[in-house]
Amino acid sequence: MFNTDVLVLESFPMNAEGSYSYNHNSSLQRQGINRSKEIIQEAIAEKLEINQFSSSSSCFAIADLGCATGPNTFVVVQNIVDAVELKIKQHLEFHVYFNDHVANDFNTLFRSIPPNTKYFISGVPGSFYGRLFPKASLHFVHCSYSLHWLSMAPNELLDQSSPAWNKGRISYANAPNEVVDAYSNQFAKDMNTFLSSRAEEVVGGGMMALLLLCTASPLHSFAAIMDLMGSCLLDMAKLGLLSEADIDSFNLPIYQATEKEVEELIEHNGCFSIEEMQPIFGKVVPDAEITCTHMRAAMEGVFKEHFGSEIMDEFFERLVNKVKASSMISTDYVVPGELSIILKRKVTT
Amino acid sequence: MFNTDVLVLESFPMNAEGSYSYNHNSSLQRQGINRSKEIIQEAIAEKLEINQFSSSSSCFAIADLGCATGPNTFVVVQNIVDAVELKIKQHLEFHVYFNDHVANDFNTLFRSIPPNTKYFISGVPGSFYGRLFPKASLHFVHCSYSLHWLSMAPNELLDQSSPAWNKGRISYANAPNEVVDAYSNQFAKDMNTFLSSRAEEVVGGGMMALLLLCTASPLHSFAAIMDLMGSCLLDMAKLGLLSEADIDSFNLPIYQATEKEVEELIEHNGCFSIEEMQPIFGKVVPDAEITCTHMRAAMEGVFKEHFGSEIMDEFFERLVNKVKASSMISTDYVVPGELSIILKRKVTT
Repeated sequence: MFNTDVLVLESFPMNAEGSYSYNHNSSLQRQGINRSKEIIQEAIAEKLEINQFSSSSSCFAIADLGCATGPNTFVVVQNIVDAVELKIKQHLEFHVYFNDHVANDFNTLFRSIPPNTKYFISGVPGSFYGRLFPKASLHFVHCSYSLHWLSMAPNELLDQSSPAWNKGRISYANAPNEVVDAYSNQFAKDMNTFLSSRAEEVVGGGMMALLLLCTASPLHSFAAIMDLMGSCLLDMAKLGLLSEADIDSFNLPIYQATEKEVEELIEHNGCFSIEEMQPIFGKVVPDAEITCTHMRAAMEGVFKEHFGSEIMDEFFERLVNKVKASSMISTDYVVPGELSIILKRKVTT
Repeated sequence: MFNTDVLVLESFPMNAEGSYSYNHNSSLQRQGINRSKEIIQEAIAEKLEINQFSSSSSCFAIADLGCATGPNTFVVVQNIVDAVELKIKQHLEFHVYFNDHVANDFNTLFRSIPPNTKYFISGVPGSFYGRLFPKASLHFVHCSYSLHWLSMAPNELLDQSSPAWNKGRISYANAPNEVVDAYSNQFAKDMNTFLSSRAEEVVGGGMMALLLLCTASPLHSFAAIMDLMGSCLLDMAKLGLLSEADIDSFNLPIYQATEKEVEELIEHNGCFSIEEMQPIFGKVVPDAEITCTHMRAAMEGVFKEHFGSEIMDEFFERLVNKVKASSMISTDYVVPGELSIILKRKVTT
């Protein structure tokens, strides 16, 4: 349902254009997507059990939530279409819904649609932390690299009277437990909203493939780079390029949950059975420049909105240097842990 | 089906931004839409017969084809939703598909979605002269001020060896019969493709409301303004602002059919029954400036692509003066004839 609540949620569009654009700088995400490709193929082959297609209307509906501007989304979707065609012997039409925030650049997305695409296409604007589709209208939902974006940074981080007041930091990295808990609670709330919304929309027996940034401990991996980001901003504040108050009033709406947290939240929600849960740890060629360009493509929007576009070049240059100097770039560095999850909508009676 | 054929079709986006934008200059279209509002309400109240909604999935699907960037499309859709809710006593969800060419500004459309909209929203990029939706997936289709845009200007107009070679003109206005016939044939072909595509997509008993530019004679009404447009370009060619060859190689992909033509094409296609066919002749306050600003919002794109953006200001200024000097602006001038048509998908057995 498209309502103002949805519009009020914060939105963080990926960079749409230029050399820092998401569609030119999403190859790291592509690696994860390639790794989860086989997991999805196997899950569809072995576990998809949908047979209620009639002869008059036999359409298989797929949604990619948080699709950004491509091109990864088209790779993901084609993989799903191919796997479903292998599994279901009947002639099917496919309807694919590409979803992202209202502020996403859908024009770029639509102009990147590969030629000879054999499915019907719709773009769906709105937050997936809420209803987006009619009841029981989807057969397969995909969502990758999106659920670590919270619907908002927790309110208490800005409350000076709260033990979770997050002065001098922009994330939960190296923060007191109260801050980590605030983030964790927000993630739990958002994840439950996500699962409950999808439970309405996915038919019984329908499936969902999630690819999450995930970690063994909330204080490792992605947190390390958020810590360096905060440190760059503090350096720039010391030089008078921005104020410390700007930092105090800013918190990244990002949380990298642990595998255990995610598992418990899905079980507590109760609408989906966990068919597969597989951590993905991929080694990447360590390159500070590439890492930071990818971070910029995905995250510049949220920094720019708060700190202004003028300081973005300097901010990301400083980040490259910090990453180079850190232990992050060493030959045994692995990309932040990711978790591939396959869920199936329980059939309600 | 989103294929390259669809991409190859010419696309003519309405102006997206600025003082000549379509969403600021579509009030004339709004008048026609208001006049057809009651016709649609009555048709739904008296003739809609769809009762196959189940309790698990009761979603009524609406498509607005050629929606541009708003705001008219939201007014149209709300009118349909309200009328269906009055007619069908069961609780329904609504899914509304907003369609236009890939080059349409969907970002502006999505950002103009009215708050508290009570339906699910999708944007569908692609030409409606071809399939856009899965089989039997739509209950009501609306299409206004769009079907006079042909999929392309007829090829023979550019063929120097053809009697339909359209030298020195940009439309069928004041043209030989062969040119008028070429346009009429292209319209017939496009209309048949449109109806056959929709016949696949609309459920049996589902309805379609079309609002067409229509005229008693193809040589009147809209043709008059296209004639003045051609005349402006010829004047500018004489001044050396463009070449006559530029004019010879350009033909507006626009055709205003007669009521009789449209009726015969629908009957020949055979998939839809005509429930209502009502000419709409609205008097407007005659104002050359407003008329030309509206023309510019809707048609600048196609002129700009061929003649370049540099001469657009002068071209439309000259058009205002020609319109002022013509008999078009007199107290008894009526807007180009429009035709409101209500169709119902025949139930196939």
